[in-house]
Amino acid sequence: MATITVLLGCSIVLNMLLFVSLYSDGGWESSWTRTAAAEAESVASISCSGHGRVFLDGSILDGKPVCECNACYGGPSCSVFLTECIADADSGDPMFLEPFWVKHAASSTIVVPGWHRMSYEFNDGSLVSKELDARIRMLHAVVGNAVTDGRYIVFGGGATQLLHAAVHALSDPFSPSRVVASTPYYPVYREQTEFFNSQDYKFEGDASLYKNTRVCEGNFIEFVTSPNNPDGQLKKAVLEGQYVKTIHDLAYYWPHYTAVPAPVEEDLMIFTLSKLTGHGGSRFGWAIIKDEAVYERMLNYMSLSTYGVPRETQLRVLKLLKLATENEGKEMFNFGYKTMSNRWRKLSKTMSTSKRFSIQELEPQRCSFSQKLRKPTPAFAWLKCEREEDKDCNAVLNSVNVTGRDGSLFGAESRYVRLSLVKSEDDFDLLLERMGLLVSRENDDSGDRINEIMPRNETIGKYLPSARMNGSYEWDFDHLWQLAGRYI
Amino acid sequence: MATITVLLGCSIVLNMLLFVSLYSDGGWESSWTRTAAAEAESVASISCSGHGRVFLDGSILDGKPVCECNACYGGPSCSVFLTECIADADSGDPMFLEPFWVKHAASSTIVVPGWHRMSYEFNDGSLVSKELDARIRMLHAVVGNAVTDGRYIVFGGGATQLLHAAVHALSDPFSPSRVVASTPYYPVYREQTEFFNSQDYKFEGDASLYKNTRVCEGNFIEFVTSPNNPDGQLKKAVLEGQYVKTIHDLAYYWPHYTAVPAPVEEDLMIFTLSKLTGHGGSRFGWAIIKDEAVYERMLNYMSLSTYGVPRETQLRVLKLLKLATENEGKEMFNFGYKTMSNRWRKLSKTMSTSKRFSIQELEPQRCSFSQKLRKPTPAFAWLKCEREEDKDCNAVLNSVNVTGRDGSLFGAESRYVRLSLVKSEDDFDLLLERMGLLVSRENDDSGDRINEIMPRNETIGKYLPSARMNGSYEWDFDHLWQLAGRYI
Repeated sequence: MATITVLLGCSIVLNMLLFVSLYSDGGWESSWTRTAAAEAESVASISCSGHGRVFLDGSILDGKPVCECNACYGGPSCSVFLTECIADADSGDPMFLEPFWVKHAASSTIVVPGWHRMSYEFNDGSLVSKELDARIRMLHAVVGNAVTDGRYIVFGGGATQLLHAAVHALSDPFSPSRVVASTPYYPVYREQTEFFNSQDYKFEGDASLYKNTRVCEGNFIEFVTSPNNPDGQLKKAVLEGQYVKTIHDLAYYWPHYTAVPAPVEEDLMIFTLSKLTGHGGSRFGWAIIKDEAVYERMLNYMSLSTYGVPRETQLRVLKLLKLATENEGKEMFNFGYKTMSNRWRKLSKTMSTSKRFSIQELEPQRCSFSQKLRKPTPAFAWLKCEREEDKDCNAVLNSVNVTGRDGSLFGAESRYVRLSLVKSEDDFDLLLERMGLLVSRENDDSGDRINEIMPRNETIGKYLPSARMNGSYEWDFDHLWQLAGRYI
Repeated sequence: MATITVLLGCSIVLNMLLFVSLYSDGGWESSWTRTAAAEAESVASISCSGHGRVFLDGSILDGKPVCECNACYGGPSCSVFLTECIADADSGDPMFLEPFWVKHAASSTIVVPGWHRMSYEFNDGSLVSKELDARIRMLHAVVGNAVTDGRYIVFGGGATQLLHAAVHALSDPFSPSRVVASTPYYPVYREQTEFFNSQDYKFEGDASLYKNTRVCEGNFIEFVTSPNNPDGQLKKAVLEGQYVKTIHDLAYYWPHYTAVPAPVEEDLMIFTLSKLTGHGGSRFGWAIIKDEAVYERMLNYMSLSTYGVPRETQLRVLKLLKLATENEGKEMFNFGYKTMSNRWRKLSKTMSTSKRFSIQELEPQRCSFSQKLRKPTPAFAWLKCEREEDKDCNAVLNSVNVTGRDGSLFGAESRYVRLSLVKSEDDFDLLLERMGLLVSRENDDSGDRINEIMPRNETIGKYLPSARMNGSYEWDFDHLWQLAGRYI
């Protein structure tokens, strides 16, 4: 009996301890975060077969949140492969990093209460988080890709907003600038400059055309993209001299996409979260600026354009960069490098037997970040159709349900197509499979084998994203954004 | 013994149940939301004496997050009133709504995992949350302030981005537009149009100047702000005719600030979250557009300007608007109306004995939302210095450590000053006290009594926000943003 009494005593003590743990330690029962946390966990636990995801702000069907499937998957749990679907390699949407963030959900999650930083301004009158500014400087020190000491940092709504703000800041209303970039260049440089139609600057095409010209009047603003979008080459400015100002777009200057030989020390450098962590949807970028007057002009632009970047975005970016800089950044960059080098290796192998198509050549290079010789890992394949008759290379790809971005948008020929290698695993796998079929058809005398393997669409219009949403779908609206989508 | 055995059995069962509760039901111990939730609760629990707040992304001192104090409060827990501080009534930062969100923390909090909507685009190819679009339409239906049926909605980075996007969308590159607004007008209309220096439009001042002019050439774009910023009057367009396009800025057309006589049905209407819920820092606004071509042009602008609004912001706004529309919106709008009507009543009473100063007259009006006759609740007092010699009214206020926004920025005389009534309770209380002293000095023959009551600064420069941060402070940086701050 004494033993049972002792056991009872112990059990009661354990009861009390568990009770205290449950209702006091952490106080979850009465906490204000509990409902939001439970909601988030609930939607995250819904399975979409590894080919989709449920989001808190996603569509609701019969009162329940539904799976949003990756491209080319459908059905209530995204388990149905849509065989006739287009392999869309147009957008540079770096979803290849999503699995890294899923794996690190606990350390990358933020909780934002309704009263979080409601004010237009931070307490010091600025529009930027000092903590985030400091974290960005630490990030560049860890990676060794840019010098930030003694320089100013401006936040923007992605590189998109900063690119135009930089043109504005470097232009001179009394002597309109000619905006140039060496071919092939990122299409937004041209489209943005033309669209805003300012009196202060005008897009003038390929920088190389002005290389050996004596510039008698007017200023130049040259965009230098390194590594280059679309071809992944490390680039230098083409123009130089007192009338030339340069914007260094370093969106891809991270160990995911290139060897980082040395920190860049240019006067105006632009980076974006989109390509660093994969959070294109967060619309966050930053410019590192040497000259105070240029910095002030860019601040002024941000102020009159959007009055800064949302505070919840800044909070989120701070959290993401904390994780990205952990262990000297090894984990995220290793994940990125491994994924991208595997993809390039697979695509290179597939294309190696083709004579009809070629992709850019890239050599292994020594990287100061990893202290190793590293394989090529470009974000894009810059595909060329080598046959004389294949003047519209994207049309050739379209015929087997692959689509990329037409070379003419980059100031090059339509003989070139940019293929994105940074999208989700599903997207890349499908692209690789279709490119494999295309090459195998080229090497196969019969020429028609592909039609036996894969049903063929004549037009991209048969691609039905509505099946992916399992909800209502407005074609007109979507169509508009598909047009807009070419800017990324 | 049997009883003890039964008790032991019960205790063991209870232990098991508690154990299951703790480790399985909800699974908090192992859940991925727990760390973030604990961090958020931890900083929220730090007391700042009701005159400040600790934020997750705030400054850290000796490894601990520190209080960020409201203006004119300092010390480690914001308990020190800074007597020589300026009562700053310049910015229209609607912090009066913060207590509502603190009270509703549980239902206004969001949890954002690292993998939340990383993509540039929603699954349907758009940049906008369909759920948020639907919630905004529901909000307007509940309040009855705007017609959304059969119209398009565009999201933007606050009204700031949408105002300029609208000018762009309504302008015609072949026939540049004259942008006008009737005096007194919101300064951003002019500053933005001049800053971006487009070839397509030019700011031309007061709309009334063109009222009776026969317009022979060129188009007009008129900004109509209702209720008006700065004076709170409900306004109509001044110009009309086939060459006139109108942008209706309805930022303040909510029951906090005005009676809502009827839903507005104009072609292009702009709203902002800042004034609706007080979340200026979230940079979110929307435009309701009748014409599809104008809608497409605004979408295009958003695409090339920032490529849309951050997804974490859209998620947060959705959550905030869910609460705002609960119980047909009664709770938030009642809170707003009560606060603002109290403030106007107090200020009106204080100013009623003055002959040196006057504020605008507003009559009670019937509101279709509350179904009642309601008192005036303007966001701003439009103060006039009546004495001939008081040509610079803000200088008169500065002499007693009050500052507002100079009337000349609104296209009016400097005899006018806009005083913000929407800031925090601390800000309003100090403004009211100082205005009371000013009026009492006017009514007091001695004239010098104020110097005995309150130490006086000669310049605004003595205002020391550094004391508020309890951390490092860079004056130059802050100064820049204080300059920029006049835009809001």
